Amino acid sequence: MSESTFAVSERNRLKRLHERGSYDRAAVFAILDTALLCHVAYVMGGQPYCTPTLFWREDDMLYWHGSSASRMLRHLKGGTPACLTVSHLDGLVLARSGFHHSVNYRSAMCFGTAQIVDDPEAKAEALAGVVDRFYPGRAATLRPNDPQEIKAVTVIGMRIDEASAKVRAKNVVDDEEDYALPIWAGVVGVKTVISGDDPCPRLQPGVARPDNLSAYTQDRVLDDVFLEMQRLYERDSTD
Amino acid sequence: MSESTFAVSERNRLKRLHERGSYDRAAVFAILDTALLCHVAYVMGGQPYCTPTLFWREDDMLYWHGSSASRMLRHLKGGTPACLTVSHLDGLVLARSGFHHSVNYRSAMCFGTAQIVDDPEAKAEALAGVVDRFYPGRAATLRPNDPQEIKAVTVIGMRIDEASAKVRAKNVVDDEEDYALPIWAGVVGVKTVISGDDPCPRLQPGVARPDNLSAYTQDRVLDDVFLEMQRLYERDSTD
Repeated sequence: MSESTFAVSERNRLKRLHERGSYDRAAVFAILDTALLCHVAYVMGGQPYCTPTLFWREDDMLYWHGSSASRMLRHLKGGTPACLTVSHLDGLVLARSGFHHSVNYRSAMCFGTAQIVDDPEAKAEALAGVVDRFYPGRAATLRPNDPQEIKAVTVIGMRIDEASAKVRAKNVVDDEEDYALPIWAGVVGVKTVISGDDPCPRLQPGVARPDNLSAYTQDRVLDDVFLEMQRLYERDSTD
Repeated sequence: MSESTFAVSERNRLKRLHERGSYDRAAVFAILDTALLCHVAYVMGGQPYCTPTLFWREDDMLYWHGSSASRMLRHLKGGTPACLTVSHLDGLVLARSGFHHSVNYRSAMCFGTAQIVDDPEAKAEALAGVVDRFYPGRAATLRPNDPQEIKAVTVIGMRIDEASAKVRAKNVVDDEEDYALPIWAGVVGVKTVISGDDPCPRLQPGVARPDNLSAYTQDRVLDDVFLEMQRLYERDSTD
């Protein structure tokens, strides 16, 4: 069984705002599992790159598709240090002074060594995961990937060695004497929702939206949908 | 006058999916100006870090608050290479094969040298910008920052030396023969909106939400609001 918290090193130690931070696995996973998009930092020739990419999680493993990192990774059989971060913006915090303006957010930073998933079986399995993690049950309904397609994709995997979560989820905190000022302050909330479907114009007649997409309903908060899909995916995987 | 495109080097040259890419300043700025949150990649002791942070733009300059990078930056008077990236998720693209699943998105990667803004006047000016860029006219209505507060914040600035934008904004593209399959395909749209206010419980009686926040209306798309505020801020700055 996994530890309930990630180990702490100089790399993931929270330097500021400790009260918002955590090394708790459940806290980190809750932030990762409500997202599809992450940003990965890596170094190539001394230059840092911050690459946005779709990612997915299987226990402590994070996966993403080949990016400009692939070229580099090909030459580094042992892998390369990377930092994968997920952030959600939840609100704008307006204070009575400029200094106390802030945002409500949830973010997770994960550290490890990014490596190409070369083994064909592991790669095919990971690629099935990318569909079923977001749309559980969908992979089996699709035209299967052919070997050329699998070859064309680079899958990168990273075990989470260390991680931390940070969350701000509260109203404005002003200096005590500033509460007396006649200035409007508070939180303007922000949410990401499903805005609706744009079906492919070349759908075959009579093809209905499948039931396994029923969670993707207009106006639902995307976080909730992604979290629900991850839990469903994990349940299916352990059957 | 600035060039209308950013210079291209090995650093920002688009390696894949050229048809989605651009070095156009207007395209890069349109992606930056619809965001509040970015991710910055930098290197400390060979380790890459991917830090989420609030940022703001003044022409070719990007600013953000001190982060764990500050410690490092203090010792590097000449600055450190960084990559600041902004991404927006606009839709989930469901295809008839796993291989052609994708997402609609807009992203911009900006390369430069991150430096601490040390000069007190430049720092105070930048800090006024962080409020007025998102809430034009608000800084003048607040309790002014005191010198201790300004001292407590580290402001980091980076001139954009090179940048690129990537956008995918279309329906699914399947292999020609796959369109005949009886599989549902299309785009599930995603949007980030304002979900409403949570006023500070300690507001003084009779203090109304000011008119300069009127753009921040429930259900409005956040991208549109941020872009509108940036344009308003630029107009005010050049008055």
